[in-house]
Amino acid sequence: MKKLIKNGTIVTAADTYVANILVDHGVIAQIGTDLAAPADAEVVDASGHYVFPGGVDPHTHLDMPFGGTVTADDFESGTIAAAFGGTTSIIDFCLTSKGAPLRDAVATWHAKAKGKAVIDYGFHLMVGEVNDEVLRELPQIIDEEGITSLKVFMAYKNVFQADDGTLLRTLQLARQEGALVMVHAENGDVIAYLIDKALEEGNTDPIYHALTRPSVLEGEATGRAVNLTELADSQLYVVHVTCAEAVEKIADARRKGLRVYGETCPQYLTLDVSYLEKPDFEGAKYVWSPPLREKSHQGVLWDALWNGSLQTIGSDQCSFDFKGQKELGRGNFSKIPNGGPTIEDRFSLLYSEGVAKGRLSLNKFVDVVSTSSAKLFGLFPRKGTIAVGSDADIVIFDPHAQRTLSAATHHMRVDYNAFEGMDVAGEPVSVLVRGEFVIRDKQFVGTPGSGEYLRRKRFGQHAAKPEQASAEAAGSAQP
Amino acid sequence: MKKLIKNGTIVTAADTYVANILVDHGVIAQIGTDLAAPADAEVVDASGHYVFPGGVDPHTHLDMPFGGTVTADDFESGTIAAAFGGTTSIIDFCLTSKGAPLRDAVATWHAKAKGKAVIDYGFHLMVGEVNDEVLRELPQIIDEEGITSLKVFMAYKNVFQADDGTLLRTLQLARQEGALVMVHAENGDVIAYLIDKALEEGNTDPIYHALTRPSVLEGEATGRAVNLTELADSQLYVVHVTCAEAVEKIADARRKGLRVYGETCPQYLTLDVSYLEKPDFEGAKYVWSPPLREKSHQGVLWDALWNGSLQTIGSDQCSFDFKGQKELGRGNFSKIPNGGPTIEDRFSLLYSEGVAKGRLSLNKFVDVVSTSSAKLFGLFPRKGTIAVGSDADIVIFDPHAQRTLSAATHHMRVDYNAFEGMDVAGEPVSVLVRGEFVIRDKQFVGTPGSGEYLRRKRFGQHAAKPEQASAEAAGSAQP
Amino acid sequence: MKKLIKNGTIVTAADTYVANILVDHGVIAQIGTDLAAPADAEVVDASGHYVFPGGVDPHTHLDMPFGGTVTADDFESGTIAAAFGGTTSIIDFCLTSKGAPLRDAVATWHAKAKGKAVIDYGFHLMVGEVNDEVLRELPQIIDEEGITSLKVFMAYKNVFQADDGTLLRTLQLARQEGALVMVHAENGDVIAYLIDKALEEGNTDPIYHALTRPSVLEGEATGRAVNLTELADSQLYVVHVTCAEAVEKIADARRKGLRVYGETCPQYLTLDVSYLEKPDFEGAKYVWSPPLREKSHQGVLWDALWNGSLQTIGSDQCSFDFKGQKELGRGNFSKIPNGGPTIEDRFSLLYSEGVAKGRLSLNKFVDVVSTSSAKLFGLFPRKGTIAVGSDADIVIFDPHAQRTLSAATHHMRVDYNAFEGMDVAGEPVSVLVRGEFVIRDKQFVGTPGSGEYLRRKRFGQHAAKPEQASAEAAGSAQP
Amino acid sequence: MKKLIKNGTIVTAADTYVANILVDHGVIAQIGTDLAAPADAEVVDASGHYVFPGGVDPHTHLDMPFGGTVTADDFESGTIAAAFGGTTSIIDFCLTSKGAPLRDAVATWHAKAKGKAVIDYGFHLMVGEVNDEVLRELPQIIDEEGITSLKVFMAYKNVFQADDGTLLRTLQLARQEGALVMVHAENGDVIAYLIDKALEEGNTDPIYHALTRPSVLEGEATGRAVNLTELADSQLYVVHVTCAEAVEKIADARRKGLRVYGETCPQYLTLDVSYLEKPDFEGAKYVWSPPLREKSHQGVLWDALWNGSLQTIGSDQCSFDFKGQKELGRGNFSKIPNGGPTIEDRFSLLYSEGVAKGRLSLNKFVDVVSTSSAKLFGLFPRKGTIAVGSDADIVIFDPHAQRTLSAATHHMRVDYNAFEGMDVAGEPVSVLVRGEFVIRDKQFVGTPGSGEYLRRKRFGQHAAKPEQASAEAAGSAQP
Repeated sequence: MKKLIKNGTIVTAADTYVANILVDHGVIAQIGTDLAAPADAEVVDASGHYVFPGGVDPHTHLDMPFGGTVTADDFESGTIAAAFGGTTSIIDFCLTSKGAPLRDAVATWHAKAKGKAVIDYGFHLMVGEVNDEVLRELPQIIDEEGITSLKVFMAYKNVFQADDGTLLRTLQLARQEGALVMVHAENGDVIAYLIDKALEEGNTDPIYHALTRPSVLEGEATGRAVNLTELADSQLYVVHVTCAEAVEKIADARRKGLRVYGETCPQYLTLDVSYLEKPDFEGAKYVWSPPLREKSHQGVLWDALWNGSLQTIGSDQCSFDFKGQKELGRGNFSKIPNGGPTIEDRFSLLYSEGVAKGRLSLNKFVDVVSTSSAKLFGLFPRKGTIAVGSDADIVIFDPHAQRTLSAATHHMRVDYNAFEGMDVAGEPVSVLVRGEFVIRDKQFVGTPGSGEYLRRKRFGQHAAKPEQASAEAAGSAQP
Repeated sequence: MKKLIKNGTIVTAADTYVANILVDHGVIAQIGTDLAAPADAEVVDASGHYVFPGGVDPHTHLDMPFGGTVTADDFESGTIAAAFGGTTSIIDFCLTSKGAPLRDAVATWHAKAKGKAVIDYGFHLMVGEVNDEVLRELPQIIDEEGITSLKVFMAYKNVFQADDGTLLRTLQLARQEGALVMVHAENGDVIAYLIDKALEEGNTDPIYHALTRPSVLEGEATGRAVNLTELADSQLYVVHVTCAEAVEKIADARRKGLRVYGETCPQYLTLDVSYLEKPDFEGAKYVWSPPLREKSHQGVLWDALWNGSLQTIGSDQCSFDFKGQKELGRGNFSKIPNGGPTIEDRFSLLYSEGVAKGRLSLNKFVDVVSTSSAKLFGLFPRKGTIAVGSDADIVIFDPHAQRTLSAATHHMRVDYNAFEGMDVAGEPVSVLVRGEFVIRDKQFVGTPGSGEYLRRKRFGQHAAKPEQASAEAAGSAQP
Repeated sequence: MKKLIKNGTIVTAADTYVANILVDHGVIAQIGTDLAAPADAEVVDASGHYVFPGGVDPHTHLDMPFGGTVTADDFESGTIAAAFGGTTSIIDFCLTSKGAPLRDAVATWHAKAKGKAVIDYGFHLMVGEVNDEVLRELPQIIDEEGITSLKVFMAYKNVFQADDGTLLRTLQLARQEGALVMVHAENGDVIAYLIDKALEEGNTDPIYHALTRPSVLEGEATGRAVNLTELADSQLYVVHVTCAEAVEKIADARRKGLRVYGETCPQYLTLDVSYLEKPDFEGAKYVWSPPLREKSHQGVLWDALWNGSLQTIGSDQCSFDFKGQKELGRGNFSKIPNGGPTIEDRFSLLYSEGVAKGRLSLNKFVDVVSTSSAKLFGLFPRKGTIAVGSDADIVIFDPHAQRTLSAATHHMRVDYNAFEGMDVAGEPVSVLVRGEFVIRDKQFVGTPGSGEYLRRKRFGQHAAKPEQASAEAAGSAQP
Repeated sequence: MKKLIKNGTIVTAADTYVANILVDHGVIAQIGTDLAAPADAEVVDASGHYVFPGGVDPHTHLDMPFGGTVTADDFESGTIAAAFGGTTSIIDFCLTSKGAPLRDAVATWHAKAKGKAVIDYGFHLMVGEVNDEVLRELPQIIDEEGITSLKVFMAYKNVFQADDGTLLRTLQLARQEGALVMVHAENGDVIAYLIDKALEEGNTDPIYHALTRPSVLEGEATGRAVNLTELADSQLYVVHVTCAEAVEKIADARRKGLRVYGETCPQYLTLDVSYLEKPDFEGAKYVWSPPLREKSHQGVLWDALWNGSLQTIGSDQCSFDFKGQKELGRGNFSKIPNGGPTIEDRFSLLYSEGVAKGRLSLNKFVDVVSTSSAKLFGLFPRKGTIAVGSDADIVIFDPHAQRTLSAATHHMRVDYNAFEGMDVAGEPVSVLVRGEFVIRDKQFVGTPGSGEYLRRKRFGQHAAKPEQASAEAAGSAQP
């Protein structure tokens, strides 16, 4: 059914203006000041509201096994929460195992999402080793599945961690195939030793999670990944950047013209290491890797979003219940499942702390929560903007709302909220995916399984040459 | 009369898509895939072409007296040439004299433009001194004239140059009044001495123009201006950045979160210091201040546009005939009028060298030649984008065209072309200003005097607060 | 009379060892483990003591007119105090006046010192302007007087301040003549305005001295001087460096191989800006230019001495009585005479805070308080070391002494001590100048007028070429 | 027998002066201008010559197995050549094997040197793993053997390479025990892959040795080692620094006050990567790890010695005959034994290229070839200077000599000279170790086995506290 979204203030990564939007067949068909509602169109009033493109969350872990347990949220609860929060596309990490076919992992991830997701989703593929088999299979998967981003872990020794030779080879392959390499940048060897030593010394509380992963080791690994990217003449995306040291390395790389990009997360912008010291083991709720940092890093991260050294905001959603899951780490911080519930509040936190507090313009806000991720990961212009021809993934957002984040009211299937008690300005009121309401007047009205799998374009497809002057090609130009 | 621009590939600072545009009353009324042409609308076919927002040139000198002569181009020839080149708005520099009312200077500049300009125009105001009279008059002019950018010269000793105390006071005033301070950043005292010395030593050829203005002195002055901006907690825009040293200072400032911006010009991206050594005094054609640099700086400038350390492209149009004007400097390079004809080719050079050569994405190209200047100088969203409600300033651009720049074919009223013989990809075919053709199928069809004066908004007006959630306010959010 | 200094621990910029020293004709004649005392030699027991080369203070202002008054200490009281403190050579600043012959200024300064100084002294020459007369006279003075260092002020607008063209010309002249250019690096134009503004706003207390001279303006001017040095391919010495911003500029310059050197002072290493807020106008005692800084800068200065980014310690001695002199600035901080009494405690403070607190090795201590200054200013190897053939300028120092600095016990002719109440480790017990005791067992035993004027060698005289392989030439090799 | 060395120009890291030196019992007993020769003293005329402290070479590999062969020079030929070149102390690397007692390795190295060395020698100890056994044994060896420096390899995968956890633990142990950690800083994992890939692609020539070890990987590893040093609050010495990227990391560390030191080698200062392309496999002669670099790095290394970012010059002597040894790598560059003959020419090359060409002062020359290494490695003041009480390790050096380096005339037991045909200024004429001639008038007059093993002091022993004011303690103060 057609829809006419009237009188909202449309905001994109570049523009801000009042107009009506006509949605037809799930796509934005017209935008105009005097659009008359076709007879078969539903009229949606957005006066006094912002009309944002749906958020694109480039970093989620749903239904993911970790340390003997599985995340609290799966593709159903996770994507419902995402939708409530204004996010209409996610890219989840498909984990692989050394020695097993990559294809099997992809099949497993498809199975996790199928019939559950209420918003659209794509997959990144983890690369844990590079051998002849991987070299044969990977190009096929990139081609057939449209999985054009590859994740390498520099941490989690003996679990996910790849060595530097593997990272270099992945970067070389990515250059050749038009993929973007993502790294978790922490020095896993050193962290492994620091954890062992802390435990030996009887230091088992959650705060030792942070103390065994100092920011200097994130800066180190980030610099190392940049150096290998330079060597491979390739492209790099650093996930969950938390600290000044890492930002400096990324900014230095970009200054030299290297295609290096960075993501931070709402938790690093708003919480700090002191949360890990909460009594009664509550610190375990705030165990992320990399860990929360000293408060002074927050300003650096905000500045980096403003000046473009960092480009995107991922949630790094990876939720575990406090009871029964986080508690696995009582008496041994290294057994606390890493991660937290952030998929729902990512968008609103950035609006409230970024726009409402004057740190980011409205356009930059849209850029970091939606557009940049769509462009970097080959979803643009289908996703990430409000433009004629794009999917009608739309958030109608009330900037005047004031509310308090809480597990009591959130929609994630997890027993705590990482931002419990935080007051935020603004709230998504209604959310459409491909023209259909998923959230309407703050109620879920979607259908599990309605989310579609997203085949993505390769990194850096240009339309700069005249003969390629089509919207499809040009839209994906390398940022 | 309404117009329907059909099937072009619309490109903004964020988006690239194929659609039709309905223009009504000089404004973009609708954008859509299936827009039917109203009965009273002219249909313009843009298939296979890019549809760009009209260029915004933030740096021109038309009808400007300099060194006893006057620029070859005035507001008529200059804006006609600009229109041919795809530029639909300019901001020209209104020069003031110490001791004279600022208001008189503004009146003089209005008189220069009136009845001549064929595209829209605004003024920056030069500040040469700050005293009680200036402190009284300046806020009035900002308010009444909508002149929200102030230019301070750190060079041209005993002519335009202001001392550092004046620069600081201007920065403080700008912070208070919401204006943006622009600086010409070169160390004028030292250059004055170097020129005297060169002349004394009998070094009178054009190349000495470059040798007496080394890049280290531009880097120095840029750093000094940044330091004063930090001290005043104000905002700064560095005009015509030419060299690695200056880029480094701007990038460092932005890394610290300072509101510092930079512009470069087509000549610095494409020409180099060797041009000043052309025989038969032809080097005089390439006398700009700051001067052309060694070729190695060009890559740094391109990288800086890509990574956001520089935001805009100005032409610094300031044309003088070779015969009779540039020749004033025969036997004494310091008497060569500074500047060159660039207003017409700014837009096409950036497309050809930037987009067609793969250095910039289409969106970044639009950003640097149009959108960023509109945002920084208070013209957005009226200018600088293709969005519903914006002025229909539109360039229909043929990316398949191939042509050679030449004085034989250009439209500036000056006897040489600085880029003579350069092959460029792409060409503006038709150009509309507020919905009316000024250039149609490469022919000028406009009317002198049809250009409108642009009152501009103050720097940094935010719409971040809910109560300001109007398009008008939000559009000018500080980049 | 010969002297045999026995069993002390001799420390130089390189060495530390126990030995006897035989002094003959004012010069160090022999050093050895088993030196027998000649019959005609006095034996001085130095067991358990350090035997340091006498301190070289490269920065003093004795008997100097400033703001309508004259420093409290002249060449008699000042050099006596210096000797008590372990300093045996000073280089004082000879101030010049625009338009007057430089020679007159030098004559005036000779007259000030003659018959008064009890230690040896040289002069730096201030350059306030460069014109034909100066260009003619300066090389003669360098040649005849052995004044091989030239001081340019970038601050004190309308008093001492020179413009950037003058600084560049001085650097060029220095390169040609083998002199070292010294700068007071603060942005005088901006400071002049900030002072006027503070006073207009009724902010007259001493703390406003610091608030109108922020560190960013010292960093700015330091960077500017470095840039001009690079342009002139010359050599630069930045006096009284106080802050991280300035250290960074000097360190960056040295990294590029530029011959740039820096000095800091004991007050910047030990006191901080909070002293300016002392009640009852007592803050006036702590008015130096540049001003005392936030405490965080101190660590940067210590690190810079350790890693060699800064090379020397000057006292910047410039004493004024609190009563009657500092008090001139009651109600107007800009009238407080700038400077303080530091000549006496420079050496001991560096030992106590540097060596005794583990920040500097013994050798580095000797280097910064004595050797480096002797080398940079053409006094080496006559001064600045304990080596055979050098002047017997010797400090016998008790490292076990503990005392408290105070005006009650100091020897400067000024009514307060800037370090009042500070506990220091170590004390000079006896001090010899050219083999004669000036201080003996903590008593003054010298004779006013016994100090000699020091003609100094040019900067950068090398003995690298085999044919110059004499000790005299080689000793002055550029550090 | 006593010796009186007359009328030479004595040069130390601080001083340059003409005097006589009396040597007694192998130690410097007296220095003076008028020293009379005792009856039992031999008089050595040094007029017109420099008298330098004997060189200290902190980095040699004598009689070392590598890749199935053994270095051409052992402790006899190697130390004889060193003596000819002006070096009187070396510190050789004692290689250990995982799983074997460290003590066994030390015993093996003692056996290699015993009865052969003609100059004094100490050992560094390689650490390849840290486990309970190593943690038990290492402090004992430091204590009993006076081996106070530990070497960790970040390269040579599957041979010497240690992982980052091992490096961190070694740094922590070093901090606790007062040892200095040395690293070979290259990224071994990546290099291993690059070598495999090059060989797979049929790229087997010597130049691929350089192409598979790009400078970015040395910069990376150096930065990583610095980060771990910061984390451990320990001290680091980076051996054989070759490139701008690594110098930058060391300089940045020192700027922050970290105790990080760096060494470069004569080959990196004078040769470049083009040597690896010599025809007929001759490039193999120039295979060092890290490899020779582009010429542009040389200036950075010289600047770093001048400004103190690098402190020492090691030879990294590791000689293999071209015939029979280097040739093992024909058809496979990775089998070329790494290293070259440099022990003999280290001292003279630094004099000739450093002092004679005006890059370093005489004092800085002595510092980098002798004093700094003695201080950093616990040999000072016994070694590294000419001062009363120090060992009479003395080089009488003719600065007027001109000669050409060549295998035809060198004294190393290897069939080529890496600097063949290079003209150098200056030559050691006579060399004494502990007061005995080893080289006399350019003839070897020493005795194999006369060299003594050097037990070394711990890193950072201070004598800053008054109660430690003895020459012995103070001499080893941390630089």
